[in-house]
Amino acid sequence: MGAIGRQTVNTAQRLKSLRELMRKPEFDVKVVVVPSEDEHFSEYPAEADKRRGFISGFNGSAGRAVVTLKDAFLFTDGRYFLQAEQQLDKNWTLMKQGLPDVPTWQEFLSKHLEEGIRIGIDPTLILASGWWTLRQNPVDVVWGTERPQRPKNRVFVLDIEYTGEQFSTKLKRVREEMAKKNATAMAVTLLDEVAWLFNLRGSDIDFNPVFFAYAIVMRDSAVLFVDENQVDDSVKIHLGQEVSIRPYEEFLPYLRSLATDSLVKKDEPVLLGDKTNLAVVEALGEENVIIMPSPVAALKAIKNPVEIEGFRQCHIRDGVALARYFAWLERQLSKGEKVDEYQGAEQLAKFRSELDKFMGLSFTAISSAGPNAAIIHYSPDPNDCAMITKDQIYLCDSGGQYLDGTTDVTRTWHFGVPSDDEKRAFTRVLQGHIAMDTAVFPAGTTDAFARRPLWEDGLDYRHGTGHGVGHFLNVHEGPQGIGTRITYNSTALKPGMTVSNEPGYYADGKWGIRIENVVIVREVSTPYNFGGVKYLGFEHVTMCPMQKTLVDLSLLTANERAWLNNYHEEVFQKVSPYLKGTDEVALEWLRRVCAPV
Amino acid sequence: MGAIGRQTVNTAQRLKSLRELMRKPEFDVKVVVVPSEDEHFSEYPAEADKRRGFISGFNGSAGRAVVTLKDAFLFTDGRYFLQAEQQLDKNWTLMKQGLPDVPTWQEFLSKHLEEGIRIGIDPTLILASGWWTLRQNPVDVVWGTERPQRPKNRVFVLDIEYTGEQFSTKLKRVREEMAKKNATAMAVTLLDEVAWLFNLRGSDIDFNPVFFAYAIVMRDSAVLFVDENQVDDSVKIHLGQEVSIRPYEEFLPYLRSLATDSLVKKDEPVLLGDKTNLAVVEALGEENVIIMPSPVAALKAIKNPVEIEGFRQCHIRDGVALARYFAWLERQLSKGEKVDEYQGAEQLAKFRSELDKFMGLSFTAISSAGPNAAIIHYSPDPNDCAMITKDQIYLCDSGGQYLDGTTDVTRTWHFGVPSDDEKRAFTRVLQGHIAMDTAVFPAGTTDAFARRPLWEDGLDYRHGTGHGVGHFLNVHEGPQGIGTRITYNSTALKPGMTVSNEPGYYADGKWGIRIENVVIVREVSTPYNFGGVKYLGFEHVTMCPMQKTLVDLSLLTANERAWLNNYHEEVFQKVSPYLKGTDEVALEWLRRVCAPV
Repeated sequence: MGAIGRQTVNTAQRLKSLRELMRKPEFDVKVVVVPSEDEHFSEYPAEADKRRGFISGFNGSAGRAVVTLKDAFLFTDGRYFLQAEQQLDKNWTLMKQGLPDVPTWQEFLSKHLEEGIRIGIDPTLILASGWWTLRQNPVDVVWGTERPQRPKNRVFVLDIEYTGEQFSTKLKRVREEMAKKNATAMAVTLLDEVAWLFNLRGSDIDFNPVFFAYAIVMRDSAVLFVDENQVDDSVKIHLGQEVSIRPYEEFLPYLRSLATDSLVKKDEPVLLGDKTNLAVVEALGEENVIIMPSPVAALKAIKNPVEIEGFRQCHIRDGVALARYFAWLERQLSKGEKVDEYQGAEQLAKFRSELDKFMGLSFTAISSAGPNAAIIHYSPDPNDCAMITKDQIYLCDSGGQYLDGTTDVTRTWHFGVPSDDEKRAFTRVLQGHIAMDTAVFPAGTTDAFARRPLWEDGLDYRHGTGHGVGHFLNVHEGPQGIGTRITYNSTALKPGMTVSNEPGYYADGKWGIRIENVVIVREVSTPYNFGGVKYLGFEHVTMCPMQKTLVDLSLLTANERAWLNNYHEEVFQKVSPYLKGTDEVALEWLRRVCAPV
Repeated sequence: MGAIGRQTVNTAQRLKSLRELMRKPEFDVKVVVVPSEDEHFSEYPAEADKRRGFISGFNGSAGRAVVTLKDAFLFTDGRYFLQAEQQLDKNWTLMKQGLPDVPTWQEFLSKHLEEGIRIGIDPTLILASGWWTLRQNPVDVVWGTERPQRPKNRVFVLDIEYTGEQFSTKLKRVREEMAKKNATAMAVTLLDEVAWLFNLRGSDIDFNPVFFAYAIVMRDSAVLFVDENQVDDSVKIHLGQEVSIRPYEEFLPYLRSLATDSLVKKDEPVLLGDKTNLAVVEALGEENVIIMPSPVAALKAIKNPVEIEGFRQCHIRDGVALARYFAWLERQLSKGEKVDEYQGAEQLAKFRSELDKFMGLSFTAISSAGPNAAIIHYSPDPNDCAMITKDQIYLCDSGGQYLDGTTDVTRTWHFGVPSDDEKRAFTRVLQGHIAMDTAVFPAGTTDAFARRPLWEDGLDYRHGTGHGVGHFLNVHEGPQGIGTRITYNSTALKPGMTVSNEPGYYADGKWGIRIENVVIVREVSTPYNFGGVKYLGFEHVTMCPMQKTLVDLSLLTANERAWLNNYHEEVFQKVSPYLKGTDEVALEWLRRVCAPV
């Protein structure tokens, strides 16, 4: 969930230049919309693609800028209200999405602007049609030579020992989906979908082991559009005869030629995932495409047995680093040593980097003390961050990338004496976490289970309860999830899907609490079986203790208490063998914090 | 939830006549869609408006018929699968909506029929545009002289003592909603909205105290379109100068004249609720209307303090009739007397009819024994129904209309020795009921709380958990409710709304269980108040015991057990005073069944 720093950028000059361009005949638009996304709809774009961050100064991961000739608006959601208030300068108006009476950016455009005015948008950055599509992105023009280059790092093959399925059978399964729609091809534009499909990985985007590429799957062949300098012989041998490689830039021209040569047509269309950018649709012709929830995303979401076992194993190893870090941190603080938020995150990264199959972090760690813990997507600025102290809440949300899986875990600690409010909120969040962990449900589920214990105290949190998690891929993976987002509710959970379980509570300006495990959806056995459907539940794979002394035990039911003790027993059994003989301090800490209540 | 009988109608001749008409040049359509609704979108249409029942023979309250030149399809949902299977003859294919791979009727029309063919529909019976609208309804032509007349019963004034608000202030509040959209008028087409708005009631539709009428609210006046023979001087004096009365048939011509005379236009449009029929839109001109969730429905949904107190009081009196009936029934069975399902319902109706302010039943009672209890919308045919016996489940869902409110209550009994399966399912349903009853939530809520105890055993039910309940109006009232329907989820619950809480479980062919109370949404006090929003909960007003001997106490938590005892204590305190000296048998029964477990 990373976002870097809290520095404010003076955007006056950037906006002035942008507005000058907007008035010029070659642009001639009254409004420019600047989304966060790159043309692949990557959640974390490369620096070169962070146009919204450049123009607004706000660098949280979600938000859209709407710039008119006079005003500038930044739309973001509850996770980023505090951060955006700190980062935006006086040229910007913050639009807090989700609050009553605050329109979405789409509503804002349709209701608050005159009808018929031209709203400019880069067609590679937008999903729907109905826009005035620009031939050139005016933000790029303003950015000019200051704009960084996109990385072009080496692409590598992920072995079958980790993927569990050859790419040729993945292609076969995509072709089966194509056949259902009589499609002649599918264009794959999301970077994690390309990486998953061909069992390749890269490092072009921080934290996400992907590389810049597009792909087209046809009935008898496939084309991977990628910079030739990024792929060596090992990749070419891996791809073999079946997949040809072409330059990244040839993707759109190739699509245009398919349409021009009538290789795609209305009754033999091209499948596009619903996160495909408008430029792709324009290149193929709107009449020649079927836009639908991506079949690749749906296949990728369900992890195979090899991937699932990888998730289990990498989470146990990850738990070793976590135990070492929290034990180290407690000891440092008890010795009176000073540790700031950034140093803490660095120490945790160091412990992770010593683990087998480690490939990097899965996002910038949220290492946050006291009031910073209430900033949901906070991350410490090395030059200006708070100390971790014994008299404050410490919230740490972090994760690693491993060849066999991806982790994402949050624990909240208090190394001194927590207040009654802190204990009460922690207990309610824990109860929500347990309720979700133990839920049994027939298809989709709701995060009301997780929120109910909080609601009983008049508490709540302004984020979803769970996101999908990729397998050595993006730590945020769609379409599955747990919460109120439309995509979550329209995507039934299925056995083999991986999601996070992370209820929280945030007391703005004071402290924040979150407890997050990664869980795998699995079939559960029930006494009856109404409707002949599978009843589902979760298997938690994250192996890290939750602080018992933050729990108000009087609020727990007997079942919740048993859950906590069983979980700690499981953590100790799985993690302690790795600590024996290597880190006795962490082992003793683990024994103590995992003892039953 | 009433539906009468299970007789099968031979539809061969009716379909033959309809298809002959469809081929004639004046109709010339390949498909006719026959919805359940009348032009007012009444949930229970008058006999004259039951076109779908006439053409298909299926008389459940929900369903749509799609008749092509060759085939005939009946689309209905899980509540009606069993009933439709029994009622439809071989000319019909049942389309079970909600099951995997069964399309909705809209999907079916768009996917399974050739493009461009003409699909005929009566514009007064349909919401959306995009249809070939017929000038005459071909089903009415087939129906011919057999078609019954619509009732034209006397309209009467509901006193301020019951309504709690003069109609003039209701009109003022509607005009405030109009002003927000700069609307010059609002057309009110739903019968319960018209009745609520003018504090009038009628009896043109069984169980719903409404009358056939349309209304237009303008900025300084209002027009009620109703048959003159139905309104006497008392109504005219009540309506006074502010509201003029015009014949029912003049509604559409009046709208047309508004458009023709440019009294409505694009920038001074007419507000229409989203359940307004297409003919109204056509009369005004599509460009001159704003279709939105009805502001009248939204105002009506929130009951004022007088209506709320009326709900409480009529539910206590209703509880008296229920106690007398269930005590009577238990005694009859223990004496070895024979009572069939219909006789049971009649006895309950008799007890209700003796109550103060009684105005009729709120729907046909579902008095159902054994396998019939699994037919969610069953009602007994007087000439062919089952006996209520001591060795079967007995499910009774019934309600009354009173001047001060409307009731809807379900209780499930076993007068002998229930099986383990029956007890287990009853207990799970009870736990779901308690979970919903005790829920605390910030805005909308979910019925996952109610389903969770069932899901844990692999059980579920194919209906929503709660519908809105009108105040001496329709027992099913929108837009509020609890469940997965889109309208429920897009309508936040607000203090003063009334909904039912009715989880259930149905073992097809064997037995069914449902436990239903009416609850009022209210603000609850919580230790904290995150987000500054109101946290909501429910106040149950239904006062009728739930059978303790059907409960597997070992499954209950301590809190659930306490809830059951507290509820029974409350029922006894409120209902017993009415039984003292009038029905000592019922009083003793009530004392026994309300004793703590």
